[in-house]
Amino acid sequence: MKHKSQQNSICPIARSQDIVGEWWSLLIVRDAMLGVKRFSEFQRRLGMAKNILSTRLKGLVEAGVLRTVPASDGSIYLEYELTEKGNALLPTLVALRQWGEKYLFAPNEPHSLLIDRKLHKPLKMIEVQAADGEPVGLNDLDLVIIGEPSRRKAKHL
Amino acid sequence: MKHKSQQNSICPIARSQDIVGEWWSLLIVRDAMLGVKRFSEFQRRLGMAKNILSTRLKGLVEAGVLRTVPASDGSIYLEYELTEKGNALLPTLVALRQWGEKYLFAPNEPHSLLIDRKLHKPLKMIEVQAADGEPVGLNDLDLVIIGEPSRRKAKHL
Repeated sequence: MKHKSQQNSICPIARSQDIVGEWWSLLIVRDAMLGVKRFSEFQRRLGMAKNILSTRLKGLVEAGVLRTVPASDGSIYLEYELTEKGNALLPTLVALRQWGEKYLFAPNEPHSLLIDRKLHKPLKMIEVQAADGEPVGLNDLDLVIIGEPSRRKAKHL
Repeated sequence: MKHKSQQNSICPIARSQDIVGEWWSLLIVRDAMLGVKRFSEFQRRLGMAKNILSTRLKGLVEAGVLRTVPASDGSIYLEYELTEKGNALLPTLVALRQWGEKYLFAPNEPHSLLIDRKLHKPLKMIEVQAADGEPVGLNDLDLVIIGEPSRRKAKHL
């Protein structure tokens, strides 16, 4: 399904959706973060149609989230790896994961959990903070537009 | 387009995608955070087809992200508002926004920006932190499965 492109939006959320907002895209990025590199492995793990996987991978490469590299074992297959831009989606994925952990599992229902290797503990909950580190919520925020002659209140979060 | 449901996945990212991973869903949540309440206003701002908006709103209500309330002005229209679960998507949206601000705009290109009302400054960049507050990256993380008899390494981030 083709959507209206958001690539000229002044809203960074809309532009981000344009890159990673299609169904499967963030799951592909997730798997790439886990070290999945090959088409066949993405396909097997995600259980998705090959033509859609192909379209998504191509889009993520064009957007600079993934890049293709020669296979590490010298075979003829291409491998996909995250660029710096792709790796920078980690906070988004962790925030989405923590939301899911909190709201989408029954108590004691098994789920995967990210821990840090040194402390061997779950990560800190991601919070939205003001410049001075104070936690802030929706009601503490204003939206402005920058890069125009005068700042004005914006209508997109 | 109907996808394989991820609602039984052990991966919280996959389950989250099941709720907010369809195209438009996060943009609807974004607009609800800005105070958009009515069908006609979502439709006008997002410029999307009414039948798709209707499907998305219904899905978000069923998932407990939005709820319907009687119109605040006493008219016959229903209004949509975020639940606590919906508001809790703020860190995800801010992380996605900050990624977009960094990677998807040319220098000096106008874009919307969240500031906190008290300091009147942009928010702090969201980071992934270990339990002790230390910033961590992909290479510092392990994925385990909890809620099963023995912890094991998982294959989903």
